[in-house]
Amino acid sequence: MSILVVGSVALDSVETPFGRAERVLGGSANFFAAAASLFAGAQVQVVGVVGDDYPMAQLDFLAQRGVDLSGIERAPGESFFWAGRYDYDLNSRDTLETRLGVFADFQPRIPEAFRSARHVFLGNIDPELQLDVLDQVDSPELVACDTMNFWIEGSRDALMRLLPRLDILMVNDAEARQFADEPNLLKAARWIQARGPRWVVIKKGEHGAMLYDRDRVFFVPGYPLESVFDPTGAGDAFAGGFMGHLAGPRVIDGDTLRRAMVYGSATGSFAVEAFSVDRFRKLTTRDVWQRVEDFREMTFFDHDVDGDHG
Amino acid sequence: MSILVVGSVALDSVETPFGRAERVLGGSANFFAAAASLFAGAQVQVVGVVGDDYPMAQLDFLAQRGVDLSGIERAPGESFFWAGRYDYDLNSRDTLETRLGVFADFQPRIPEAFRSARHVFLGNIDPELQLDVLDQVDSPELVACDTMNFWIEGSRDALMRLLPRLDILMVNDAEARQFADEPNLLKAARWIQARGPRWVVIKKGEHGAMLYDRDRVFFVPGYPLESVFDPTGAGDAFAGGFMGHLAGPRVIDGDTLRRAMVYGSATGSFAVEAFSVDRFRKLTTRDVWQRVEDFREMTFFDHDVDGDHG
Repeated sequence: MSILVVGSVALDSVETPFGRAERVLGGSANFFAAAASLFAGAQVQVVGVVGDDYPMAQLDFLAQRGVDLSGIERAPGESFFWAGRYDYDLNSRDTLETRLGVFADFQPRIPEAFRSARHVFLGNIDPELQLDVLDQVDSPELVACDTMNFWIEGSRDALMRLLPRLDILMVNDAEARQFADEPNLLKAARWIQARGPRWVVIKKGEHGAMLYDRDRVFFVPGYPLESVFDPTGAGDAFAGGFMGHLAGPRVIDGDTLRRAMVYGSATGSFAVEAFSVDRFRKLTTRDVWQRVEDFREMTFFDHDVDGDHG
Repeated sequence: MSILVVGSVALDSVETPFGRAERVLGGSANFFAAAASLFAGAQVQVVGVVGDDYPMAQLDFLAQRGVDLSGIERAPGESFFWAGRYDYDLNSRDTLETRLGVFADFQPRIPEAFRSARHVFLGNIDPELQLDVLDQVDSPELVACDTMNFWIEGSRDALMRLLPRLDILMVNDAEARQFADEPNLLKAARWIQARGPRWVVIKKGEHGAMLYDRDRVFFVPGYPLESVFDPTGAGDAFAGGFMGHLAGPRVIDGDTLRRAMVYGSATGSFAVEAFSVDRFRKLTTRDVWQRVEDFREMTFFDHDVDGDHG
C-alpha cells in the first residue's frame, strides 16, 4: 500500500558524547522512509526539497528498498542543514546551527502518481503547507501528522484548521500540554481529539509513547537500550514504523493501531543506536519483529491466576 | 504473612493547585501501611516514632484494617513535620518547611513480636538505621528498601554496606543514575544489581516504573489519571501495594514480582487522587484489582496474528 510522506530531506551534523557525524542524512522524510520501507507492504513515496549540494547518491539505499524518491525536488541553493549537540545524558540538546536553505521556500508539489496514496504522513513542517498537501491528494484512508512547539505557538490557526482533517496527531508530551493549554496529559489528548483526530499519539522519548483512542489508552515503554548513540530522528523513525506496519493489508482500528505503536517504538529504538539513518541500512524485518516480541515480554504479566488474591 | 515496615510517621501540610491540607497523616510508613493493608494476606507491622503532638486517633483506620501499630514509639517533643507546595503541573515541588522533631533521634527498636517478619520494607531513612533494623530481625525471606538522593550523596558507604543485604532496591530514575554515576538507566540498574539486590525497581512518577530482574526488564506505565490531586506519598503507596501483593501465599520469583509492580502502580495511582492517605480509607481490594485489569488492558497488544507481516 502506498504511503506518501512530506517532510524535510536534510543534512545533519551531530555531536554526542560518543562521537560526531558531519553532514549526514537527516530530516523527517529520510528517517520516516528508512523505517517505513522495512515493511513489505509499504510503498513509500517521498516529497521534499533539496539544494544542489545534496549527496543524492546516499539515498540509493532507500531507492533500493523501493522508496520512490521522484517527489524530491532539486532547487538551486543550499540544502536544509541542522547542527546540534547532545549532552551526556542525551535528554537535552543544543541546536548549534540551523540553515533552512531551499527548505525556506518549500512548496510541496505532489506528483500526479502520488495523489492517490492511501496513507499520508505529514512530517513536521508549516501547517499551512500540511493543509496544502491535503488539498492536493485524492482521498486518503488515513492521514497522520507531526508538529512541534514552533508551529503551536506561531501557527495555531492553521493547526486548528488542520485538526479536523487528521486521523492521527503525533506530538510529544510537552507539545500536547502546550497545544491544549492543559497540564494533565489525558485531558490534553481529549482536547485534541475533540477537535478532529480520532487518535492522538503522544511520544515521551525514553519514557515511551501513548495512544489515545476514543475511550481507551494504550501504552508502550521506551526500549531499554544500553547504547543510546544519537537520539536524532527517533520520532520520525517511530512514525515510519507505525505507518509502515499499517500499510499491510488490514483494517485500521484500535487493535491495529496498538500494534503499530509497538512497531513504531521498535523502529524508533533502532534509530538511536547509530548516527543518522545508519542503523536501518542492514536492518531486517526479522530484527524489527524480534524487538516487538521484546516489547511484549517487557509488558506482559499474568493477572488471572491471581484473581483469588486481589 | 507479616510485613515489617520501618519509616516515618509524619504530619504533612500540602498545597496543590487544587487545595490545601494542614497537618494531615503523612510519612513513608503511613502511606505504605495504608496501601499494604488492603491485601488480605498482609499483616502489616509498623515501626516508627511520633512526638506527643501526634493525632494517634487518626491512625485508627489502619488499626481497623489489622495494621499493628504497637511499634510506633511516642517520644517527648514534636512529630516529624513536612510542608510543601506543588506547582501547576504537579511534577515539581518546593519544600516549604521540614521539622524533623523526634525523628531526628529515631533509633528503630523492633519489638520482639516483629522480629520474625517474613518480609521487610525499609522506608527512606538513614541507611545506618536501615542496617540496624536488619541486625534486629531474624531472617526475612525478602528485604526491600527505598532511599533517596540525600543518602546517596551523604551516606554512600552505609548504602554500599546495605546493598548486599537487600533483595530489592527501589529508587527513582534520577537516584539510580546518581548512585551508579551512570546516565544510562539500564547500565545503572545493572551496576546496582551487581552489588547485591537481585531486583531493582525504578520509579518514574507519571512515566511509570521498571523492574530489572537478572536478565529481564518489566515495565508498567503510569496510570493516566484525569485528576492528579496530590503526588505526596505515591512512591510509598507503590511500595505498599507491591509488598502487599507479595504477602499472599506465593513463590517470590520474577513473574510474581511483575504482578507486584502492577499492584504497586495501582495503589500508587490511588494515592495521588486525594490528599494524605485519604483515598485508601474506603478503597476495596476489588477497586485495586480493577485498576490492575486496566493496566493490563493499557499494555496488551496482539502480535502473533500479525506474524506474517513483520
